[in-house]
Amino acid sequence: MNKFTVTLSCVDRPGIVHAISGGLLGAGCNITESQQYESPESGTFFMRIEVATEQSLAQVRAALAPIRDDFHMSLRVDDTTARTRTLIMCSKAGHALNDLLFAQRAGTLAIDIPVIVSNHLELKSMAEFYGVDFVHLPVTAANKSQAEAELLKLVDDYDIELVVLARYMQILSDSLCQRMEGRVINIHHSFLPSFKGAKPYHQAYARGVKLIGATAHYVTSDLDEGPIIEQEVTQVSHARTPEQLVALGRSVEGRTLTRAVQWHAEHRVMLDGQRTIVFS
Amino acid sequence: MNKFTVTLSCVDRPGIVHAISGGLLGAGCNITESQQYESPESGTFFMRIEVATEQSLAQVRAALAPIRDDFHMSLRVDDTTARTRTLIMCSKAGHALNDLLFAQRAGTLAIDIPVIVSNHLELKSMAEFYGVDFVHLPVTAANKSQAEAELLKLVDDYDIELVVLARYMQILSDSLCQRMEGRVINIHHSFLPSFKGAKPYHQAYARGVKLIGATAHYVTSDLDEGPIIEQEVTQVSHARTPEQLVALGRSVEGRTLTRAVQWHAEHRVMLDGQRTIVFS
Amino acid sequence: MNKFTVTLSCVDRPGIVHAISGGLLGAGCNITESQQYESPESGTFFMRIEVATEQSLAQVRAALAPIRDDFHMSLRVDDTTARTRTLIMCSKAGHALNDLLFAQRAGTLAIDIPVIVSNHLELKSMAEFYGVDFVHLPVTAANKSQAEAELLKLVDDYDIELVVLARYMQILSDSLCQRMEGRVINIHHSFLPSFKGAKPYHQAYARGVKLIGATAHYVTSDLDEGPIIEQEVTQVSHARTPEQLVALGRSVEGRTLTRAVQWHAEHRVMLDGQRTIVFS
Amino acid sequence: MNKFTVTLSCVDRPGIVHAISGGLLGAGCNITESQQYESPESGTFFMRIEVATEQSLAQVRAALAPIRDDFHMSLRVDDTTARTRTLIMCSKAGHALNDLLFAQRAGTLAIDIPVIVSNHLELKSMAEFYGVDFVHLPVTAANKSQAEAELLKLVDDYDIELVVLARYMQILSDSLCQRMEGRVINIHHSFLPSFKGAKPYHQAYARGVKLIGATAHYVTSDLDEGPIIEQEVTQVSHARTPEQLVALGRSVEGRTLTRAVQWHAEHRVMLDGQRTIVFS
Repeated sequence: MNKFTVTLSCVDRPGIVHAISGGLLGAGCNITESQQYESPESGTFFMRIEVATEQSLAQVRAALAPIRDDFHMSLRVDDTTARTRTLIMCSKAGHALNDLLFAQRAGTLAIDIPVIVSNHLELKSMAEFYGVDFVHLPVTAANKSQAEAELLKLVDDYDIELVVLARYMQILSDSLCQRMEGRVINIHHSFLPSFKGAKPYHQAYARGVKLIGATAHYVTSDLDEGPIIEQEVTQVSHARTPEQLVALGRSVEGRTLTRAVQWHAEHRVMLDGQRTIVFS
Repeated sequence: MNKFTVTLSCVDRPGIVHAISGGLLGAGCNITESQQYESPESGTFFMRIEVATEQSLAQVRAALAPIRDDFHMSLRVDDTTARTRTLIMCSKAGHALNDLLFAQRAGTLAIDIPVIVSNHLELKSMAEFYGVDFVHLPVTAANKSQAEAELLKLVDDYDIELVVLARYMQILSDSLCQRMEGRVINIHHSFLPSFKGAKPYHQAYARGVKLIGATAHYVTSDLDEGPIIEQEVTQVSHARTPEQLVALGRSVEGRTLTRAVQWHAEHRVMLDGQRTIVFS
Repeated sequence: MNKFTVTLSCVDRPGIVHAISGGLLGAGCNITESQQYESPESGTFFMRIEVATEQSLAQVRAALAPIRDDFHMSLRVDDTTARTRTLIMCSKAGHALNDLLFAQRAGTLAIDIPVIVSNHLELKSMAEFYGVDFVHLPVTAANKSQAEAELLKLVDDYDIELVVLARYMQILSDSLCQRMEGRVINIHHSFLPSFKGAKPYHQAYARGVKLIGATAHYVTSDLDEGPIIEQEVTQVSHARTPEQLVALGRSVEGRTLTRAVQWHAEHRVMLDGQRTIVFS
Repeated sequence: MNKFTVTLSCVDRPGIVHAISGGLLGAGCNITESQQYESPESGTFFMRIEVATEQSLAQVRAALAPIRDDFHMSLRVDDTTARTRTLIMCSKAGHALNDLLFAQRAGTLAIDIPVIVSNHLELKSMAEFYGVDFVHLPVTAANKSQAEAELLKLVDDYDIELVVLARYMQILSDSLCQRMEGRVINIHHSFLPSFKGAKPYHQAYARGVKLIGATAHYVTSDLDEGPIIEQEVTQVSHARTPEQLVALGRSVEGRTLTRAVQWHAEHRVMLDGQRTIVFS
């Protein structure tokens, strides 16, 4: 029995569910999970369906093609058991990388991680322990465009579907962001209120915030402002030092990023303009 | 434009979604929200759909009747804007009652509360402030069955669909529980580990628990053990006294119960044996 | 047996705890609770002590006066059982007012609320239900300074120690903020990221935030930017409408404000520049 | 400048704080952090103090000895920068071990981990990656007392102060529990309500719980019932499978155990009968 995940979006109008469920029924698919959402603002209809069937991926895709065309849908059919090929970028801090690698190895994060890219060498041994290729790609002002070209080559060579910035401390160029839109996930610290500029945890400390957290989001050319996938915060008291805030923040960052990658890899995240629909 | 909520369950088999969406399409219904779940253990399929249509409730019910019969469904179609008529029972502590009444009045809890029943008089003035009928129904060992008969008469007289035990400190009889199964929601305190017997907060204090919480559940004849609708906990430190634990617990109880009543009133809760499916 | 709360701050130097505990011992005080904090940045030492004693408030104050002078302390001794006289300001939305009044009446918020002031009439009946004076004080651009003068007169007439803005939708003047610094607590909604301008919940919806929350803070002349006392957030999914976000946000606002008022009333909050020390 | 942590408990009576702060002042100690708690039930006074001083550990201990004797205190003075020597026991599941090792290596968990003991071989490579000795100690009904003797020898040989059961799936004997009382920390899953017996996550699934969590506690001869150090829960919906509940539970277990170990290693946990005082 094959398992496929169907994700689709289109302008809302009557008959979508009936058409798509009819197409799936015709292709011998039993629907095992289904979620849908109609965006009141954009008028867009979103749907995610998991099915079990004896038919092949190509057969199911062919069966749904006329419906896709009729409703002008954006539609994908993916093998539910296929693992998203993921490239992780990191710098010196290993907390987010460690969470991703451990979850992947433990079987709770169903992705493949064939390669890790870093502008530093500190995390090479962790890559080796997990048996993942490690590419050292230093970035300077002078070589930035060349380094990004090498990154894109790695994306091609390793057949990468998703890039995860696991506390990668370099800013991607606008052109790279646009080229890989919707396929790069970043994690950054988040506070109430938010802080701009250097040493955010020290700013948060100076401001006496009682919550610190993290936001996982798709990278757009608007730095740290892409569509939000997942957020989490934790309570802190006045007695925590800036260093302890950093440590607590890292713990939140690691698990928030891991969940966001999981939602993406399971095709649970869809874009509605600046918002995400997360069928978690 | 009318808004209806369709809830259904049946033994899972291919074609349910296609059939029901076809029936709705035929009745001129546009699906605005839909959730479904297939229970892997029981093999039961659950679905909740909100629709907008120009047709009447009777017309939609008639359109779905053949599908209901064909799939041997348990199926309901409710007017989404109708407000569940709710009777609240309480004793002396008013926190849960206050949360329910305020949320109802503020418009965030879409139920009607025509009557409050209590075995004490302490909360009569709160009922009066909110303009809700208050019935004083003392319960003793001697008059218990008579008191329950009066309660059932109130349920009939006020056309009650849901009974909420908002810290009502009497145990309902088995026969009443069975008669009103799935229509009575209770709230009780919850700890890790759990405690049996009197003064549970004092037991929790003595045991040094770091979390206290509340569980909202349907009442069954198995006391405090019915299907769970909603749960929440809050952190506590060793410095809290038993009295402070009680106060914190009450705050959690009030909001947990209010959410559970909301899920029920919006037809979001369905029973899968001892479990609940909550399409929240 | 009397119960007093001692709060003090001074420049840190050796011997503070020994001196103050010696003073208390001399005044026949048994220390029942004590917390302290040394701010690494400002070098300020903060301490909060609860004591039980047969001596009077005046006697304990007299006993500690030489130590206060010796260490150039800011020092207070308050009767632990005295209830902070609190004036609540509100507009039309009653959720925060309701939480405060109910908690006060239930005995879990140990303040006195002799008077409620509003620029609208919607919440007059709630004040009446709780037996609290209600003063209608409309504010226009033309009468603003006169209205604030009346407010200050109410503060004097009712012997008010704390003003709580429970979703009061008028901005206090700079002069009023400065005059009542450290004695006015406000609640406002909070998001990650934060939003400026009108309809913040609609902005948060449009941005797809996954958390919404509230911040309780002291009012300063820098609007919504005073020292933070308490913060809380709750998770939200893409399926929540802006109206539902508002309802969820109100629930968080009410309980966050109530906790902040409690910390203040129990003399648990001390100012360290822009930060608060909260001995909760 | 040396940094020491003083922890003490004794029967409460006036003058403790003055005496101990006097002793510390005499030993040239500046108090940088202090917390205390008086247990209303047991009448026991607990205190934890961090100090900075030019004097040696022996000098400070000598200075406090007369006060300790006078008040019949249980009193310790520890070097704050010393790292608790910790032996970790595990079986096949590596999530808790991974969290502990990573936090230790990242510098956020200030312990030393010289040796890992397991009744299986699965986690040997993880120990090797972190450069920690790994001892394979299979346990059968026949060799249990011998295996425990070897464990005690490892405790001696490695100069172990704390044993952490990081999902170690063997039950320690009563005699071992008693011998190492207060020095063995365990983690176990926790639900509302709680479940006894095999496959607890499947029981929790069948019961439809909406929260799953973990409890870290000191091991006593009363299995899973020792004094609680730390607890945490996470929300789950009906849609989670038992396998997903296990994965979510593991994530909570890892971080709950790590925090409990940190509190213990920083001498923040004190026993008050069956309860813990946690000066976090």
